[in-house]
Amino acid sequence: MTADADVLDRADPLAAHRARFVGAAGPLVYFDGNSLGRPLAVTADRLADFVRDEWGGRLIRGWDERWYDLPLALGDEIGRVCLGAAAGQTFVGDSTTVLLYKLIRAAVDAADPARTEIVIDTDNFPTDRYVVEGVAAERGLTVRWVEVDQESGITPGALEQAVGRRTALVVLSHVAYRSAFLADAAAITRIAHDAGALVLWDLSHEAGSVPVELDAWDVDLAVGCTYKYLNGGPGSPAFGYVATRHLDALRQPVQGWMGHADPFLMGPGYTPSAGVRRFISGTPAVVGMLALADMVALIDEVGMTAVREKSRALTSYAVSLADTDLARLGVSLSSPRDSGRRGGHVTLTHARMREVVATLWERDVIPDYRDPGGLRVGLSPLSTSFAEVATGMTAVRDLLRSG
Amino acid sequence: MTADADVLDRADPLAAHRARFVGAAGPLVYFDGNSLGRPLAVTADRLADFVRDEWGGRLIRGWDERWYDLPLALGDEIGRVCLGAAAGQTFVGDSTTVLLYKLIRAAVDAADPARTEIVIDTDNFPTDRYVVEGVAAERGLTVRWVEVDQESGITPGALEQAVGRRTALVVLSHVAYRSAFLADAAAITRIAHDAGALVLWDLSHEAGSVPVELDAWDVDLAVGCTYKYLNGGPGSPAFGYVATRHLDALRQPVQGWMGHADPFLMGPGYTPSAGVRRFISGTPAVVGMLALADMVALIDEVGMTAVREKSRALTSYAVSLADTDLARLGVSLSSPRDSGRRGGHVTLTHARMREVVATLWERDVIPDYRDPGGLRVGLSPLSTSFAEVATGMTAVRDLLRSG
Repeated sequence: MTADADVLDRADPLAAHRARFVGAAGPLVYFDGNSLGRPLAVTADRLADFVRDEWGGRLIRGWDERWYDLPLALGDEIGRVCLGAAAGQTFVGDSTTVLLYKLIRAAVDAADPARTEIVIDTDNFPTDRYVVEGVAAERGLTVRWVEVDQESGITPGALEQAVGRRTALVVLSHVAYRSAFLADAAAITRIAHDAGALVLWDLSHEAGSVPVELDAWDVDLAVGCTYKYLNGGPGSPAFGYVATRHLDALRQPVQGWMGHADPFLMGPGYTPSAGVRRFISGTPAVVGMLALADMVALIDEVGMTAVREKSRALTSYAVSLADTDLARLGVSLSSPRDSGRRGGHVTLTHARMREVVATLWERDVIPDYRDPGGLRVGLSPLSTSFAEVATGMTAVRDLLRSG
Repeated sequence: MTADADVLDRADPLAAHRARFVGAAGPLVYFDGNSLGRPLAVTADRLADFVRDEWGGRLIRGWDERWYDLPLALGDEIGRVCLGAAAGQTFVGDSTTVLLYKLIRAAVDAADPARTEIVIDTDNFPTDRYVVEGVAAERGLTVRWVEVDQESGITPGALEQAVGRRTALVVLSHVAYRSAFLADAAAITRIAHDAGALVLWDLSHEAGSVPVELDAWDVDLAVGCTYKYLNGGPGSPAFGYVATRHLDALRQPVQGWMGHADPFLMGPGYTPSAGVRRFISGTPAVVGMLALADMVALIDEVGMTAVREKSRALTSYAVSLADTDLARLGVSLSSPRDSGRRGGHVTLTHARMREVVATLWERDVIPDYRDPGGLRVGLSPLSTSFAEVATGMTAVRDLLRSG
């Protein structure tokens, strides 16, 4: 299979970008870019320079000069480059979990009191489910669970059965964290709107690898993670999106000085800022945004369309190797076969995968494992070669063969 | 006055540590270490090395190896070195504002329903007041405001008048952000407990400069900021403290995967972790904790007692210069005269201070300004020399004189 990989790498117009990432030249095989993206080499110097020159040199003046506006400026960049979002709707801050809480609360607190249900699917990422359960419990709402088949994912038909005049909000992941199933966000958003509900899309498992069109799809709310395909580093802050039409009506519950209409007035009483700033609470995590900004700039240079094309080619190659070499060893594909309905990873299922993944890690092949029996091959488009895919898949085959 | 400063600098046992900070050799005069501490020089290399070796080299394995436990391990270190807190009660994560929200909610949600009031003082930091107002509004509680004289600050006597059988929680700052008034936390905590209420102390304006004894004072809850005297960098994550006796009974509302009893089980339903981990919500901001860890290690090396001694000497020197040179120009001291009742900064008030501060900034003397008419001289003990204080105070005098 290595010969094919070399051909594919030679034909890859984005191949040269791999050299920009720390460690991407190998020999370690990294199948976990969907969980924690590799750093850009430039990021090491960026952080050191920031400490010496910007933090150390500008000190408190940095807030006026750049940092205070950074959550909105970088949010606009993420929106423009990755999300199909016009300026003034996207911001960076907090963890994905905290942003989920804030935006879910904002939506249900503003809903018609007759709308007492939050709709979410049973296969959504744990933190999404936990937050929805928590908000429902504290606000006296009901969680309406949509049962989904892991392989088919959340469909317009399934959602149509779940929403109605009691639905306040629908919370879904656009790419499923286990199967990489890619939902039809435009159709599902329309169905929710027809029922009079708002929709929050969690883009964590895709942002920076799958093009998204939040404005065109008429999405209400979105959140996403920046340490996966946006290479922001472990625990880098999340992003949130609130459509312009909701900015005046929605308020989030964690009202802090950085979301105030005039933070340095420091007077009595909280008045939320106009615009998307009202969704910010505390002091922005400036250091945590720097790596992310480098990666958004690189994606802008390459273009999301080209990134997506490479991503589809990488996952399709992994699927073809699974078909050729792993199917006869009892491995099944737990991701959509159609790359147009698939995010940036592929899940391969086998009863022995837990131990296989543990052994792979010892051999410097790093996928991750998700119950039940799923090895996730997460292929960050700009830092992964076809040869790396081949090497890793060969290691999986050899381990399964050796029994 | 420079001659005195040189004598004081020569006698300062901590003087050598200044060389460890970026830019502390001058010529810029920095009076804003209480707002954003200078970086340690070692932090620049720490961050670059982290990107290349730990994030770039260990990749996703870093979570198992160190990062997953870092919020608790670093929390324990902050607790031991700065807070008088035994292990297992302190954690790092989120912004101060988000932690205030989570811990205030945890306290009032668990309170006897007959306790319908949150007590807070009118001079508390804006974000504390905004969060309390927000929580009170959403939980149907009342805010009971304690009017404080800015210069005397919150006293046991004032608190005694405010608490009673309706009090659920008292939220106060140990060091007042404007005057640097240092409250009698032990006495006030006792008064609140006698009334059957819990107390949350915000340590933001002091952590790393004033020794705190959370366990000995029988404090229930605390939060604090890490980018001031703990030099964590702009927007570094906050810390929270929950006394061991409350760990089982309290739950915070932002229930996310990182606070779950078994985060990687990823099953249905949220079960909070045992211990202080349940107060964590999303993925910890690992990069944001690195600078902070360096500073906590330095404070551990020096000792909080020595840090406090230097801090008192620095602010006392600033007060003596204000008495000698500024009082006759109409400047009044808006901070306690007794250094034992004062945190790490001194506020000097004059009707023209807003413009004075603006001009000082142009001349590379960087204090900050807080209404009404307050110039804050914030003196980070380990990175500030007496000569720096003298130079900055002379600049203030010259500007007021030139009137």
